[in-house]
Amino acid sequence: MKEYKRVVQYYETDKMGITHHSNYVRWMEEARVDYLEQIGWSYAKLEEAGIISPVTNVECGYKKPTTFSDEVYISLSIAEYNGVKLVFKYTMKNKNGEVVCEAKSSHCFLNSNGQFVFISKFNPELHQTLKDLIAQ
Amino acid sequence: MKEYKRVVQYYETDKMGITHHSNYVRWMEEARVDYLEQIGWSYAKLEEAGIISPVTNVECGYKKPTTFSDEVYISLSIAEYNGVKLVFKYTMKNKNGEVVCEAKSSHCFLNSNGQFVFISKFNPELHQTLKDLIAQ
Amino acid sequence: MKEYKRVVQYYETDKMGITHHSNYVRWMEEARVDYLEQIGWSYAKLEEAGIISPVTNVECGYKKPTTFSDEVYISLSIAEYNGVKLVFKYTMKNKNGEVVCEAKSSHCFLNSNGQFVFISKFNPELHQTLKDLIAQ
Amino acid sequence: MKEYKRVVQYYETDKMGITHHSNYVRWMEEARVDYLEQIGWSYAKLEEAGIISPVTNVECGYKKPTTFSDEVYISLSIAEYNGVKLVFKYTMKNKNGEVVCEAKSSHCFLNSNGQFVFISKFNPELHQTLKDLIAQ
Repeated sequence: MKEYKRVVQYYETDKMGITHHSNYVRWMEEARVDYLEQIGWSYAKLEEAGIISPVTNVECGYKKPTTFSDEVYISLSIAEYNGVKLVFKYTMKNKNGEVVCEAKSSHCFLNSNGQFVFISKFNPELHQTLKDLIAQ
Repeated sequence: MKEYKRVVQYYETDKMGITHHSNYVRWMEEARVDYLEQIGWSYAKLEEAGIISPVTNVECGYKKPTTFSDEVYISLSIAEYNGVKLVFKYTMKNKNGEVVCEAKSSHCFLNSNGQFVFISKFNPELHQTLKDLIAQ
Repeated sequence: MKEYKRVVQYYETDKMGITHHSNYVRWMEEARVDYLEQIGWSYAKLEEAGIISPVTNVECGYKKPTTFSDEVYISLSIAEYNGVKLVFKYTMKNKNGEVVCEAKSSHCFLNSNGQFVFISKFNPELHQTLKDLIAQ
Repeated sequence: MKEYKRVVQYYETDKMGITHHSNYVRWMEEARVDYLEQIGWSYAKLEEAGIISPVTNVECGYKKPTTFSDEVYISLSIAEYNGVKLVFKYTMKNKNGEVVCEAKSSHCFLNSNGQFVFISKFNPELHQTLKDLIAQ
Protein backbone atom coordinates (compact mmCIF):
# COMPACT_ATOMS: atom_id res chain seq x y z
CA MET A 1 0.00 0.00 0.00
CA LYS A 2 1.28 3.48 -0.84
CA GLU A 3 1.85 5.73 2.17
CA TYR A 4 0.02 9.07 2.34
CA LYS A 5 2.17 12.17 2.07
CA ARG A 6 1.05 15.30 3.85
CA VAL A 7 2.82 18.68 3.93
CA VAL A 8 2.28 20.68 7.14
CA GLN A 9 0.42 23.91 6.45
CA TYR A 10 1.17 27.27 8.08
CA TYR A 11 -2.31 27.45 9.61
CA GLU A 12 -1.67 24.12 11.32
CA THR A 13 1.19 25.50 13.42
CA ASP A 14 0.67 27.15 16.80
CA LYS A 15 2.53 29.77 18.82
CA MET A 16 4.97 27.16 20.09
CA GLY A 17 6.18 27.12 16.49
CA ILE A 18 5.14 23.51 15.87
CA THR A 19 2.17 21.66 14.40
CA HIS A 20 -0.78 21.82 16.80
CA HIS A 21 -1.44 18.31 18.09
CA SER A 22 -5.12 18.33 17.06
CA ASN A 23 -4.16 18.31 13.38
CA TYR A 24 -2.74 14.80 13.49
CA VAL A 25 -6.28 13.53 14.10
CA ARG A 26 -7.32 15.23 10.86
CA TRP A 27 -4.38 13.76 8.97
CA MET A 28 -5.43 10.32 10.20
CA GLU A 29 -8.77 10.87 8.48
CA GLU A 30 -7.05 12.00 5.27
CA ALA A 31 -4.78 8.95 5.28
CA ARG A 32 -7.72 6.65 6.05
CA VAL A 33 -9.77 8.02 3.15
CA ASP A 34 -6.75 7.48 0.89
CA TYR A 35 -6.20 3.93 2.19
CA LEU A 36 -9.85 2.97 1.72
CA GLU A 37 -9.66 4.23 -1.85
CA GLN A 38 -6.52 2.17 -2.45
CA ILE A 39 -8.24 -1.01 -1.26
CA GLY A 40 -11.19 -0.34 -3.55
CA TRP A 41 -13.59 1.02 -0.92
CA SER A 42 -13.72 4.75 -1.50
CA TYR A 43 -16.03 6.81 0.66
CA ALA A 44 -18.40 7.11 -2.33
CA LYS A 45 -18.55 3.32 -2.72
CA LEU A 46 -19.15 2.81 1.02
CA GLU A 47 -21.94 5.38 0.89
CA GLU A 48 -23.50 3.66 -2.12
CA ALA A 49 -23.37 0.40 -0.20
CA GLY A 50 -25.19 2.12 2.66
CA ILE A 51 -22.28 1.76 5.08
CA ILE A 52 -21.22 4.46 7.52
CA SER A 53 -18.15 3.86 9.66
CA PRO A 54 -17.88 6.50 12.40
CA VAL A 55 -14.87 6.95 14.64
CA THR A 56 -15.54 5.58 18.13
CA ASN A 57 -12.09 6.08 19.57
CA VAL A 58 -8.90 7.87 18.66
CA GLU A 59 -5.46 7.71 20.25
CA CYS A 60 -2.35 9.69 19.31
CA GLY A 61 1.15 9.39 20.73
CA TYR A 62 3.32 12.36 19.81
CA LYS A 63 6.97 11.36 19.42
CA LYS A 64 8.64 14.29 17.69
CA PRO A 65 7.34 17.72 16.71
CA THR A 66 6.82 18.74 13.10
CA THR A 67 6.37 22.22 11.71
CA PHE A 68 5.38 24.26 8.67
CA SER A 69 6.41 22.80 5.31
CA ASP A 70 7.57 19.50 6.81
CA GLU A 71 6.63 16.41 4.86
CA VAL A 72 4.86 13.74 6.88
CA TYR A 73 4.54 10.20 5.54
CA ILE A 74 1.63 8.27 6.96
CA SER A 75 1.39 4.51 6.65
CA LEU A 76 -1.70 2.69 7.73
CA SER A 77 -2.60 -0.86 8.55
CA ILE A 78 -5.52 -2.75 10.04
CA ALA A 79 -4.68 -3.64 13.64
CA GLU A 80 -7.93 -5.37 14.46
CA TYR A 81 -11.11 -6.42 12.68
CA ASN A 82 -13.84 -8.75 13.83
CA GLY A 83 -16.87 -7.91 11.71
CA VAL A 84 -18.26 -5.25 14.01
CA LYS A 85 -15.20 -3.26 15.03
CA LEU A 86 -12.29 -2.05 12.91
CA VAL A 87 -9.06 -0.61 14.28
CA PHE A 88 -6.56 1.23 12.11
CA LYS A 89 -2.97 1.78 13.15
CA TYR A 90 -1.06 4.79 11.81
CA THR A 91 2.67 5.42 11.73
CA MET A 92 3.70 8.93 10.75
CA LYS A 93 7.32 9.60 9.83
CA ASN A 94 9.26 12.70 8.82
CA LYS A 95 11.48 12.69 5.74
CA ASN A 96 14.41 11.39 7.78
CA GLY A 97 12.37 8.30 8.56
CA GLU A 98 11.90 9.22 12.21
CA VAL A 99 8.52 8.41 13.74
CA VAL A 100 6.72 11.64 14.66
CA CYS A 101 3.39 10.16 15.71
CA GLU A 102 1.86 6.75 16.34
CA ALA A 103 -1.89 6.57 16.37
CA LYS A 104 -4.96 4.36 16.35
CA SER A 105 -8.58 4.87 15.41
CA SER A 106 -11.49 2.55 16.13
CA HIS A 107 -14.61 2.37 14.03
CA CYS A 108 -17.97 0.68 14.13
CA PHE A 109 -20.35 0.08 11.22
CA LEU A 110 -23.81 1.57 10.77
CA ASN A 111 -26.35 1.30 7.98
CA SER A 112 -27.86 4.46 6.54
CA ASN A 113 -30.50 4.44 9.30
CA GLY A 114 -27.77 4.67 11.89
CA GLN A 115 -28.19 1.08 13.12
CA PHE A 116 -25.23 -1.17 14.01
CA VAL A 117 -24.56 -3.86 11.43
CA PHE A 118 -22.39 -6.97 11.20
CA ILE A 119 -20.32 -6.39 8.08
CA SER A 120 -19.91 -10.15 7.66
CA LYS A 121 -23.64 -10.32 6.90
CA PHE A 122 -24.32 -6.81 5.65
CA ASN A 123 -21.54 -6.73 3.09
CA PRO A 124 -19.55 -9.97 2.69
CA GLU A 125 -17.36 -8.42 -0.01
CA LEU A 126 -16.07 -5.65 2.29
CA HIS A 127 -15.79 -8.20 5.10
CA GLN A 128 -13.49 -10.38 3.00
CA THR A 129 -11.35 -7.44 1.94
CA LEU A 130 -10.82 -6.36 5.54
CA LYS A 131 -10.14 -9.92 6.71
CA ASP A 132 -7.52 -10.37 4.00
CA LEU A 133 -5.84 -7.10 4.96
CA ILE A 134 -5.56 -7.92 8.64
CA ALA A 135 -3.68 -11.08 7.77
CA GLN A 136 -0.87 -8.99 6.27
CA MET B 1 -27.61 44.55 20.98
CA LYS B 2 -25.07 42.77 23.19
CA GLU B 3 -21.64 42.33 21.65
CA TYR B 4 -20.21 38.83 21.32
CA LYS B 5 -17.18 38.05 23.45
CA ARG B 6 -14.66 35.55 22.18
CA VAL B 7 -11.46 34.42 23.88
CA VAL B 8 -8.64 33.43 21.51
CA GLN B 9 -7.75 29.75 21.85
CA TYR B 10 -4.24 28.32 21.76
CA TYR B 11 -5.02 26.22 18.68
CA GLU B 12 -6.02 29.39 16.84
CA THR B 13 -2.53 30.87 17.02
CA ASP B 14 0.17 30.19 14.44
CA LYS B 15 3.96 30.09 14.46
CA MET B 16 4.11 33.87 14.09
CA GLY B 17 2.73 33.85 17.67
CA ILE B 18 -0.56 35.51 16.71
CA THR B 19 -4.10 34.44 15.84
CA HIS B 20 -4.16 32.92 12.37
CA HIS B 21 -6.16 35.23 10.10
CA SER B 22 -8.55 32.49 8.95
CA ASN B 23 -10.09 32.25 12.42
CA TYR B 24 -11.69 35.69 12.24
CA VAL B 25 -13.99 34.33 9.53
CA ARG B 26 -15.11 31.65 11.98
CA TRP B 27 -15.66 34.20 14.73
CA MET B 28 -17.84 36.18 12.33
CA GLU B 29 -20.08 33.14 12.06
CA GLU B 30 -20.19 32.72 15.84
CA ALA B 31 -21.10 36.39 16.32
CA ARG B 32 -23.71 36.18 13.56
CA VAL B 33 -25.38 33.14 15.10
CA ASP B 34 -25.47 35.01 18.42
CA TYR B 35 -26.86 38.17 16.81
CA LEU B 36 -29.60 36.27 14.98
CA GLU B 37 -30.58 34.64 18.25
CA GLN B 38 -30.72 38.04 19.94
CA ILE B 39 -33.09 39.39 17.28
CA GLY B 40 -35.35 36.37 17.68
CA TRP B 41 -34.22 34.45 14.60
CA SER B 42 -32.09 31.62 15.90
CA TYR B 43 -30.69 29.15 13.42
CA ALA B 44 -33.29 26.62 14.61
CA LYS B 45 -36.14 29.07 13.92
CA LEU B 46 -34.74 29.93 10.47
CA GLU B 47 -34.48 26.22 9.68
CA GLU B 48 -38.05 25.63 10.83
CA ALA B 49 -39.17 28.46 8.58
CA GLY B 50 -37.38 26.74 5.69
CA ILE B 51 -34.83 29.53 5.25
CA ILE B 52 -31.15 28.96 4.51
CA SER B 53 -28.87 31.96 4.31
CA PRO B 54 -25.47 30.99 2.91
CA VAL B 55 -22.44 33.26 2.84
CA THR B 56 -21.81 34.60 -0.66
CA ASN B 57 -18.96 36.96 0.19
CA VAL B 58 -16.65 37.62 3.08
CA GLU B 59 -14.18 40.45 3.63
CA CYS B 60 -11.78 40.93 6.54
CA GLY B 61 -9.48 43.83 7.23
CA TYR B 62 -6.87 43.01 9.85
CA LYS B 63 -5.93 46.07 11.90
CA LYS B 64 -4.05 44.74 14.91
CA PRO B 65 -2.91 41.24 15.83
CA THR B 66 -4.44 39.29 18.70
CA THR B 67 -3.07 36.23 20.41
CA PHE B 68 -3.83 33.39 22.82
CA SER B 69 -6.13 34.29 25.74
CA ASP B 70 -6.96 37.75 24.35
CA GLU B 71 -10.58 38.77 24.66
CA VAL B 72 -12.16 39.94 21.42
CA TYR B 73 -15.44 41.86 21.46
CA ILE B 74 -17.44 41.59 18.26
CA SER B 75 -20.26 43.97 17.49
CA LEU B 76 -22.45 43.41 14.50
CA SER B 77 -24.85 45.49 12.48
CA ILE B 78 -26.78 45.19 9.25
CA ALA B 79 -25.03 47.27 6.61
CA GLU B 80 -27.37 46.48 3.75
CA TYR B 81 -30.65 44.64 3.20
CA ASN B 82 -32.96 44.68 0.23
CA GLY B 83 -35.07 41.55 0.52
CA VAL B 84 -32.72 39.32 -1.45
CA LYS B 85 -29.29 40.25 -0.12
CA LEU B 86 -28.17 40.84 3.44
CA VAL B 87 -24.84 42.36 4.44
CA PHE B 88 -23.52 42.23 8.00
CA LYS B 89 -20.76 44.53 9.24
CA TYR B 90 -18.51 43.40 12.07
CA THR B 91 -16.26 45.43 14.32
CA MET B 92 -13.88 43.45 16.52
CA LYS B 93 -12.13 45.19 19.38
CA ASN B 94 -9.60 44.09 22.00
CA LYS B 95 -10.18 44.85 25.67
CA ASN B 96 -8.47 48.23 25.29
CA GLY B 97 -11.15 49.20 22.82
CA GLU B 98 -8.79 49.12 19.85
CA VAL B 99 -10.20 47.79 16.58
CA VAL B 100 -8.43 44.54 15.66
CA CYS B 101 -10.54 43.59 12.66
CA GLU B 102 -13.27 45.09 10.48
CA ALA B 103 -15.26 42.70 8.39
CA LYS B 104 -18.30 42.16 6.21
CA SER B 105 -20.27 39.13 5.13
CA SER B 106 -22.91 38.97 2.41
CA HIS B 107 -25.73 36.46 2.36
CA CYS B 108 -28.51 35.40 0.04
CA PHE B 109 -31.68 33.51 0.95
CA LEU B 110 -32.65 30.04 -0.20
CA ASN B 111 -35.61 27.82 0.59
CA SER B 112 -35.03 24.24 1.69
CA ASN B 113 -34.86 23.17 -1.97
CA GLY B 114 -31.92 25.48 -2.50
CA GLN B 115 -33.89 27.99 -4.60
CA PHE B 116 -33.44 31.76 -4.26
CA VAL B 117 -36.31 33.48 -2.47
CA PHE B 118 -37.46 37.03 -1.85
CA ILE B 119 -37.72 37.26 1.92
CA SER B 120 -40.28 40.07 1.56
CA LYS B 121 -42.68 37.49 0.11
CA PHE B 122 -41.33 34.28 1.60
CA ASN B 123 -41.27 35.48 5.18
CA PRO B 124 -42.68 38.98 5.79
CA GLU B 125 -41.99 38.72 9.53
CA LEU B 126 -38.23 38.21 9.06
CA HIS B 127 -38.30 40.87 6.33
CA GLN B 128 -39.75 43.43 8.73
CA THR B 129 -37.26 42.56 11.47
CA LEU B 130 -34.30 43.05 9.13
CA LYS B 131 -35.73 46.28 7.69
CA ASP B 132 -36.18 47.69 11.18
CA LEU B 133 -32.63 46.78 12.12
CA ILE B 134 -31.04 48.42 9.10
CA ALA B 135 -32.64 51.71 10.08
CA GLN B 136 -30.63 51.72 13.31
CA MET C 1 -13.79 23.00 40.27
CA LYS C 2 -16.16 24.63 37.81
CA GLU C 3 -16.82 22.65 34.64
CA TYR C 4 -16.08 24.25 31.28
CA LYS C 5 -19.06 24.99 29.06
CA ARG C 6 -18.60 24.89 25.32
CA VAL C 7 -21.24 25.54 22.67
CA VAL C 8 -20.74 23.61 19.41
CA GLN C 9 -20.09 25.96 16.50
CA TYR C 10 -21.47 25.54 12.99
CA TYR C 11 -17.96 25.29 11.47
CA GLU C 12 -17.26 22.37 13.81
CA THR C 13 -19.93 20.17 12.25
CA ASP C 14 -19.29 17.94 9.24
CA LYS C 15 -21.40 16.57 6.40
CA MET C 16 -22.66 13.76 8.62
CA GLY C 17 -24.50 16.58 10.45
CA ILE C 18 -22.57 16.11 13.70
CA THR C 19 -19.52 17.60 15.39
CA HIS C 20 -16.36 16.42 13.66
CA HIS C 21 -14.44 14.19 16.06
CA SER C 22 -11.20 16.20 15.78
CA ASN C 23 -12.80 19.15 17.57
CA TYR C 24 -13.06 17.34 20.89
CA VAL C 25 -9.25 17.38 21.07
CA ARG C 26 -9.40 21.17 20.75
CA TRP C 27 -12.08 21.42 23.44
CA MET C 28 -9.85 19.39 25.74
CA GLU C 29 -7.22 22.11 25.37
CA GLU C 30 -9.78 24.83 26.08
CA ALA C 31 -10.99 23.04 29.21
CA ARG C 32 -7.39 22.39 30.34
CA VAL C 33 -6.46 26.07 29.98
CA ASP C 34 -9.54 26.96 32.01
CA TYR C 35 -8.76 24.35 34.67
CA LEU C 36 -5.15 25.50 35.03
CA GLU C 37 -6.37 29.04 35.49
CA GLN C 38 -8.83 27.89 38.15
CA ILE C 39 -6.05 26.17 40.13
CA GLY C 40 -3.93 29.32 39.95
CA TRP C 41 -1.58 28.23 37.17
CA SER C 42 -2.68 30.15 34.10
CA TYR C 43 -0.70 29.69 30.92
CA ALA C 44 0.84 33.14 31.50
CA LYS C 45 2.04 32.13 34.97
CA LEU C 46 3.45 28.83 33.69
CA GLU C 47 5.29 30.70 30.96
CA GLU C 48 6.69 33.20 33.47
CA ALA C 49 7.88 30.27 35.55
CA GLY C 50 9.64 28.92 32.46
CA ILE C 51 7.47 25.80 32.27
CA ILE C 52 6.15 24.30 29.05
CA SER C 53 3.87 21.29 29.24
CA PRO C 54 3.35 19.75 25.79
CA VAL C 55 0.84 17.06 25.00
CA THR C 56 2.55 13.67 24.57
CA ASN C 57 -0.57 11.55 24.18
CA VAL C 58 -4.25 12.07 23.60
CA GLU C 59 -7.12 9.60 23.72
CA CYS C 60 -10.79 10.22 22.97
CA GLY C 61 -13.71 7.84 23.29
CA TYR C 62 -16.79 9.07 21.47
CA LYS C 63 -19.98 7.97 23.23
CA LYS C 64 -22.76 10.07 21.71
CA PRO C 65 -22.75 12.58 18.86
CA THR C 66 -23.26 16.31 19.41
CA THR C 67 -24.15 18.95 16.86
CA PHE C 68 -24.40 22.67 16.18
CA SER C 69 -25.58 24.79 19.12
CA ASP C 70 -25.39 21.90 21.61
CA GLU C 71 -23.98 22.77 24.99
CA VAL C 72 -21.14 20.53 26.13
CA TYR C 73 -20.03 20.51 29.77
CA ILE C 74 -16.46 19.40 30.29
CA SER C 75 -15.18 18.37 33.69
CA LEU C 76 -11.54 17.67 34.24
CA SER C 77 -9.49 15.91 36.85
CA ILE C 78 -5.92 14.79 37.32
CA ALA C 79 -5.74 11.04 36.75
CA GLU C 80 -2.02 10.63 37.27
CA TYR C 81 0.92 12.77 38.36
CA ASN C 82 4.41 11.72 39.41
CA GLY C 83 6.57 14.81 39.02
CA VAL C 84 7.51 14.15 35.39
CA LYS C 85 4.25 13.07 33.79
CA LEU C 86 0.77 14.52 34.18
CA VAL C 87 -2.41 12.88 32.94
CA PHE C 88 -5.72 14.73 32.72
CA LYS C 89 -9.05 12.94 32.47
CA TYR C 90 -11.98 14.65 30.76
CA THR C 91 -15.66 13.86 30.94
CA MET C 92 -17.88 15.70 28.48
CA LYS C 93 -21.63 15.70 28.98
CA ASN C 94 -24.56 17.14 27.06
CA LYS C 95 -27.22 19.18 28.79
CA ASN C 96 -29.19 16.04 29.63
CA GLY C 97 -26.23 14.83 31.64
CA GLU C 98 -25.35 12.09 29.15
CA VAL C 99 -21.66 11.43 28.56
CA VAL C 100 -20.75 12.35 24.98
CA CYS C 101 -16.99 11.87 25.19
CA GLU C 102 -14.43 10.52 27.65
CA ALA C 103 -10.85 11.54 27.07
CA LYS C 104 -7.33 11.67 28.44
CA SER C 105 -4.28 13.75 27.70
CA SER C 106 -0.73 13.11 28.89
CA HIS C 107 1.84 15.84 29.35
CA CYS C 108 5.52 16.13 30.17
CA PHE C 109 7.34 19.19 31.48
CA LEU C 110 10.05 21.15 29.71
CA ASN C 111 11.98 24.28 30.65
CA SER C 112 12.19 27.16 28.20
CA ASN C 113 15.20 25.49 26.52
CA GLY C 114 13.06 22.47 25.74
CA GLN C 115 14.76 20.20 28.28
CA PHE C 116 12.82 17.72 30.45
CA VAL C 117 12.48 18.81 34.07
CA PHE C 118 11.36 17.23 37.32
CA ILE C 119 8.65 19.57 38.55
CA SER C 120 9.31 18.44 42.13
CA LYS C 121 12.70 20.18 41.91
CA PHE C 122 12.06 22.76 39.21
CA ASN C 123 8.93 24.21 40.77
CA PRO C 124 7.96 22.79 44.17
CA GLU C 125 4.92 25.09 44.38
CA LEU C 126 3.33 23.69 41.20
CA HIS C 127 4.38 20.19 42.29
CA GLN C 128 2.48 20.57 45.57
CA THR C 129 -0.61 21.96 43.83
CA LEU C 130 -0.73 19.00 41.43
CA LYS C 131 -0.10 16.46 44.21
CA ASP C 132 -2.93 17.92 46.26
CA LEU C 133 -5.28 17.77 43.28
CA ILE C 134 -4.60 14.14 42.47
CA ALA C 135 -5.64 13.18 45.98
CA GLN C 136 -9.13 14.47 45.30
CA MET D 1 2.80 29.03 -13.30
CA LYS D 2 1.37 25.70 -12.21
CA GLU D 3 -2.00 25.87 -10.49
CA TYR D 4 -2.36 24.44 -6.98
CA LYS D 5 -4.57 21.38 -6.66
CA ARG D 6 -6.42 20.84 -3.41
CA VAL D 7 -8.75 17.96 -2.55
CA VAL D 8 -11.55 18.86 -0.11
CA GLN D 9 -11.22 16.95 3.14
CA TYR D 10 -14.08 15.45 5.12
CA TYR D 11 -13.33 17.62 8.17
CA GLU D 12 -13.68 20.70 5.96
CA THR D 13 -17.35 20.05 5.25
CA ASP D 14 -20.17 21.29 7.47
CA LYS D 15 -23.68 20.11 8.27
CA MET D 16 -25.01 21.77 5.13
CA GLY D 17 -23.04 19.03 3.34
CA ILE D 18 -20.63 21.45 1.66
CA THR D 19 -17.18 22.89 2.30
CA HIS D 20 -17.34 25.41 5.13
CA HIS D 21 -16.58 28.85 3.70
CA SER D 22 -13.74 29.56 6.16
CA ASN D 23 -11.58 26.86 4.57
CA TYR D 24 -11.15 28.76 1.32
CA VAL D 25 -9.11 31.34 3.25
CA ARG D 26 -6.79 28.52 4.33
CA TRP D 27 -6.50 27.19 0.80
CA MET D 28 -5.51 30.68 -0.34
CA GLU D 29 -2.57 30.48 2.04
CA GLU D 30 -1.63 27.02 0.75
CA ALA D 31 -1.76 28.22 -2.86
CA ARG D 32 0.23 31.36 -1.99
CA VAL D 33 2.97 29.36 -0.29
CA ASP D 34 3.13 27.14 -3.38
CA TYR D 35 3.21 30.14 -5.74
CA LEU D 36 5.98 31.87 -3.80
CA GLU D 37 8.01 28.68 -3.97
CA GLN D 38 7.44 28.47 -7.71
CA ILE D 39 8.77 32.03 -8.22
CA GLY D 40 11.84 31.21 -6.15
CA TRP D 41 10.78 32.88 -2.90
CA SER D 42 9.85 30.06 -0.57
CA TYR D 43 8.81 30.93 2.94
CA ALA D 44 12.23 29.71 4.16
CA LYS D 45 14.03 32.08 1.77
CA LEU D 46 11.82 35.02 2.76
CA GLU D 47 12.52 34.27 6.42
CA GLU D 48 16.25 34.09 5.77
CA ALA D 49 16.03 37.45 4.03
CA GLY D 50 14.30 38.82 7.15
CA ILE D 51 11.02 39.49 5.35
CA ILE D 52 7.59 38.85 6.88
CA SER D 53 4.53 39.46 4.74
CA PRO D 54 1.37 39.33 6.86
CA VAL D 55 -2.14 39.33 5.47
CA THR D 56 -3.80 42.73 5.92
CA ASN D 57 -7.00 42.01 4.04
CA VAL D 58 -8.82 39.03 2.64
CA GLU D 59 -11.86 38.85 0.37
CA CYS D 60 -13.69 35.75 -0.85
CA GLY D 61 -16.58 35.54 -3.27
CA TYR D 62 -18.28 32.15 -3.18
CA LYS D 63 -19.67 31.18 -6.59
CA LYS D 64 -20.47 27.49 -6.36
CA PRO D 65 -20.31 25.04 -3.45
CA THR D 66 -17.75 22.25 -3.27
CA THR D 67 -17.79 19.19 -1.05
CA PHE D 68 -15.79 16.26 0.26
CA SER D 69 -13.34 14.70 -2.22
CA ASP D 70 -13.86 17.44 -4.83
CA GLU D 71 -10.73 18.62 -6.57
CA VAL D 72 -10.21 22.36 -6.49
CA TYR D 73 -7.70 24.01 -8.83
CA ILE D 74 -6.36 27.33 -7.58
CA SER D 75 -4.57 29.73 -9.89
CA LEU D 76 -2.93 32.80 -8.51
CA SER D 77 -1.68 36.06 -9.93
CA ILE D 78 -0.38 39.37 -8.65
CA ALA D 79 -3.14 41.94 -8.99
CA GLU D 80 -1.28 44.85 -7.49
CA TYR D 81 2.24 45.63 -6.27
CA ASN D 82 3.84 48.96 -5.46
CA GLY D 83 6.79 48.15 -3.23
CA VAL D 84 4.86 48.39 0.04
CA LYS D 85 1.64 46.55 -0.70
CA LEU D 86 1.09 43.29 -2.56
CA VAL D 87 -2.29 41.99 -3.68
CA PHE D 88 -2.81 38.42 -4.86
CA LYS D 89 -5.82 37.35 -6.90
CA TYR D 90 -7.06 33.75 -6.70
CA THR D 91 -9.35 31.87 -9.03
CA MET D 92 -10.56 28.51 -7.80
CA LYS D 93 -12.18 26.10 -10.24
CA ASN D 94 -13.71 22.65 -9.92
CA LYS D 95 -12.71 19.84 -12.26
CA ASN D 96 -15.37 20.91 -14.76
CA GLY D 97 -13.61 24.26 -15.07
CA GLU D 98 -16.37 26.15 -13.26
CA VAL D 99 -15.28 28.95 -10.95
CA VAL D 100 -16.15 28.04 -7.35
CA CYS D 101 -14.48 30.97 -5.62
CA GLU D 102 -12.79 34.23 -6.51
CA ALA D 103 -10.60 35.79 -3.86
CA LYS D 104 -8.01 38.42 -3.04
CA SER D 105 -5.47 38.84 -0.27
CA SER D 106 -3.48 41.97 0.54
CA HIS D 107 -0.11 41.92 2.23
CA CYS D 108 2.38 44.40 3.63
CA PHE D 109 6.07 43.81 4.32
CA LEU D 110 7.79 43.85 7.69
CA ASN D 111 11.37 43.19 8.73
CA SER D 112 12.09 40.73 11.52
CA ASN D 113 11.57 43.51 14.08
CA GLY D 114 8.02 43.99 12.83
CA GLN D 115 8.72 47.33 11.15
CA PHE D 116 7.25 48.27 7.76
CA VAL D 117 9.79 48.18 4.93
CA PHE D 118 9.91 49.30 1.30
CA ILE D 119 10.80 46.14 -0.57
CA SER D 120 12.32 48.25 -3.37
CA LYS D 121 15.07 49.28 -0.93
CA PHE D 122 15.02 46.37 1.52
CA ASN D 123 15.29 43.64 -1.07
CA PRO D 124 15.68 44.81 -4.70
CA GLU D 125 15.82 41.21 -5.95
CA LEU D 126 12.37 40.34 -4.60
CA HIS D 127 11.12 43.76 -5.76
CA GLN D 128 12.19 43.01 -9.32
CA THR D 129 10.63 39.54 -9.27
CA LEU D 130 7.28 40.92 -8.12
CA LYS D 131 7.38 43.80 -10.63
CA ASP D 132 8.06 41.38 -13.46
CA LEU D 133 5.17 39.15 -12.39
CA ILE D 134 2.62 41.95 -12.25
CA ALA D 135 3.35 42.78 -15.87
CA GLN D 136 2.09 39.34 -16.90
